[in-house]
Amino acid sequence: MSLVVQKYGGSSVATAERIKRVAERIVATRKQGHDVVVVVSAMGDTTDELMDLASQVAPVPPARELDMLLTSGERISNALVAMAIQSLGAEARSYTGSQAGVITTSVHGKARIIDVTPGRIREALDAGQIALVAGFQGVSQDTKDITTLGRGGSDTTAVALAAALEADVCEIYTDVDGVFTADPRIVPDAQKLDSITYEEMLEMAASGAKVLMLRCVEYARRYGVPVHVRSSYSDLEGTIVTGSMEDQAVEQALITGVAHERGEAKVTVTAVPDHPGVAGRIFRVIADAEIDIDMVVQNVSRAAEGRTDITFTLPKDDGPRAVAALEAKKAEIEFDQIVYNDHVGKISLIGAGMRSHPGVTATFCEALAEADVNIDIISTSEIRISVLVRDVELDKAVQALHRAFDLGGGDEAVVYAGTGR
Amino acid sequence: MSLVVQKYGGSSVATAERIKRVAERIVATRKQGHDVVVVVSAMGDTTDELMDLASQVAPVPPARELDMLLTSGERISNALVAMAIQSLGAEARSYTGSQAGVITTSVHGKARIIDVTPGRIREALDAGQIALVAGFQGVSQDTKDITTLGRGGSDTTAVALAAALEADVCEIYTDVDGVFTADPRIVPDAQKLDSITYEEMLEMAASGAKVLMLRCVEYARRYGVPVHVRSSYSDLEGTIVTGSMEDQAVEQALITGVAHERGEAKVTVTAVPDHPGVAGRIFRVIADAEIDIDMVVQNVSRAAEGRTDITFTLPKDDGPRAVAALEAKKAEIEFDQIVYNDHVGKISLIGAGMRSHPGVTATFCEALAEADVNIDIISTSEIRISVLVRDVELDKAVQALHRAFDLGGGDEAVVYAGTGR
Repeated sequence: MSLVVQKYGGSSVATAERIKRVAERIVATRKQGHDVVVVVSAMGDTTDELMDLASQVAPVPPARELDMLLTSGERISNALVAMAIQSLGAEARSYTGSQAGVITTSVHGKARIIDVTPGRIREALDAGQIALVAGFQGVSQDTKDITTLGRGGSDTTAVALAAALEADVCEIYTDVDGVFTADPRIVPDAQKLDSITYEEMLEMAASGAKVLMLRCVEYARRYGVPVHVRSSYSDLEGTIVTGSMEDQAVEQALITGVAHERGEAKVTVTAVPDHPGVAGRIFRVIADAEIDIDMVVQNVSRAAEGRTDITFTLPKDDGPRAVAALEAKKAEIEFDQIVYNDHVGKISLIGAGMRSHPGVTATFCEALAEADVNIDIISTSEIRISVLVRDVELDKAVQALHRAFDLGGGDEAVVYAGTGR
Repeated sequence: MSLVVQKYGGSSVATAERIKRVAERIVATRKQGHDVVVVVSAMGDTTDELMDLASQVAPVPPARELDMLLTSGERISNALVAMAIQSLGAEARSYTGSQAGVITTSVHGKARIIDVTPGRIREALDAGQIALVAGFQGVSQDTKDITTLGRGGSDTTAVALAAALEADVCEIYTDVDGVFTADPRIVPDAQKLDSITYEEMLEMAASGAKVLMLRCVEYARRYGVPVHVRSSYSDLEGTIVTGSMEDQAVEQALITGVAHERGEAKVTVTAVPDHPGVAGRIFRVIADAEIDIDMVVQNVSRAAEGRTDITFTLPKDDGPRAVAALEAKKAEIEFDQIVYNDHVGKISLIGAGMRSHPGVTATFCEALAEADVNIDIISTSEIRISVLVRDVELDKAVQALHRAFDLGGGDEAVVYAGTGR
């Protein structure tokens, strides 16, 4: 007998009818002989509706109370799914994140999981019951207040429970069929991947792929939980996220896919003194404003003047704040000016195989040149090449790369060891 | 500094606008220098809407899950009120019944409070915060599951907290101005009582007065908590429920008021053998069906035949079930037939003074006779006379009694010691 953890998102349980469909799926899984734990998000737009109610009574709702309010959504959906399961003849019990032993930090709205002690869940499973656990929430270790986990919180709850219960798999049910070689809305012949390593999925998630949040993949990787991303609308197999690049066969697919991100802006701090400490000062200002940075590029330039430019990307929404924060510290940082550009798009090519294949970078740049796409900045990791281009050229660039690496249609992109990178 | 517990019902917090009005009232109370604890019911029709959702996913929702579902309503309203209070500049924290230390039995849907250990509430008050507590709920002492308290649960929560915290008063905010000498919709010149003893309020509640539930009054009486029933739409003083009849001055008002109940039916079990054990058998059958009985009347009758009739009243909704249960045991009970009548109305005259005034019963019956109302059965307690009449004559009877005892308009009904009963 194996243990399966399933997670269903808000649209999967948006109505009474869909709740019953999800319950049928859960009972079917149980009938196959598995122990089943299910994490359910709030129904449909419940979270948004509650946020709206909150804003009607208070312009700046206090974070602790917002968490007390929002967690009602998951409580409602999990209780309803449990009821639906029972009416199909199987035993089910719902639990809050707190009751399930999800222990977190005290930061309301974006708490992090410190530990998971799912004693009550284990007891329920031993009693033959299906356990429903409210996602997106936990209880603070220090204050004993209820906390919410921020974006991707329900996925993270599911993976964390799977890790703590040593589940055989964590199934994430979503509205796409799995992880694709590129966004099918941009590249019609994008293919669904049968499997992808944790590291590649991390890069995909960090590069703009929306199907799984970075934190959830990182948690799965750390504890070795296989994550099966699949559609809640069919029985098709999705994409299994598991395994490490080191485990991969020598003859491995070179490239996994192309991810893109439209939500970033670029900031260039020009002509800063090129000596130790300057970069630190810049990024401390940004960090103090609680802004996350993505790409960072500093090149040798203007060496004769002893000055250089530092460029970084960040979420567009944080752009104006970052610029203001830097302008306020112009004297200390001693830059010439801040150049801000929010009409950029980021494209990333990801693949474990690129480590051992030196031709990839060349193919990458040639493909973009042929598509008449100009590269603004380049940044790479061991298994990823990311560039910033003009946002209006993003779709064209994604398609060009997808084609250049044979990721579409019938042919899998496989380049064997021996070809140079 | 005193401690005030306030309770607001669902209609008081049905919209964002009303929530803000309630928050203003709470903050005003705090600004007078009191410690304030507030119990809030779910917004408007939330509980009914959740019940409806439940019935859509399961024909017979399991009780444990129903409690998990329904308690979301109070969680939402209390968090919103706390937010509204904070935006007015005062500190507030909301708590579930479990967090507030409301410990109950394990009977889902109608759990009883076993104990209240409000440590976290006390801490919040000591820190200068207003504490919001979700009403209608607690946590089971045995199973640690969340429970709901059944009808009147929020009022009971408020009184229980007031008792545990040794509050100076428990204010129940409702949509009427207080406790009246009769239902103002039947008797236009009914008067608001300034005060009423626990025992009289118990009788009023047991006799059909809907303003406070019996259990809540009993809890208040047991712990000596003064309960102030008042309107949430004005600043008028309402009715204080406090004190015992023994404390009352010798010169006391004779009659407090007239209560009525339309929701009962009458069952007569005819010609049962008049010997020990028969009545017990009848009421055990009813008890096993989990039906509550109100009035019980057995008179000496048909003595020559050694048989008697037993009559009792019960909620109309339970009538058919009770009759069926009795018919099923006809052989054991040996009755002749069951006579069922659901076109009855119950009227009760209540007053601490009637113990020492023998003329009341006579005045009572004469008033009804003058109004041409026939009395079906009579049942009394030390401070109450109840009769069953035809339901279509109920209004007329209430008005007649209210007039006969001078309960209306400018004159209070005061009959001094010395006049016989």
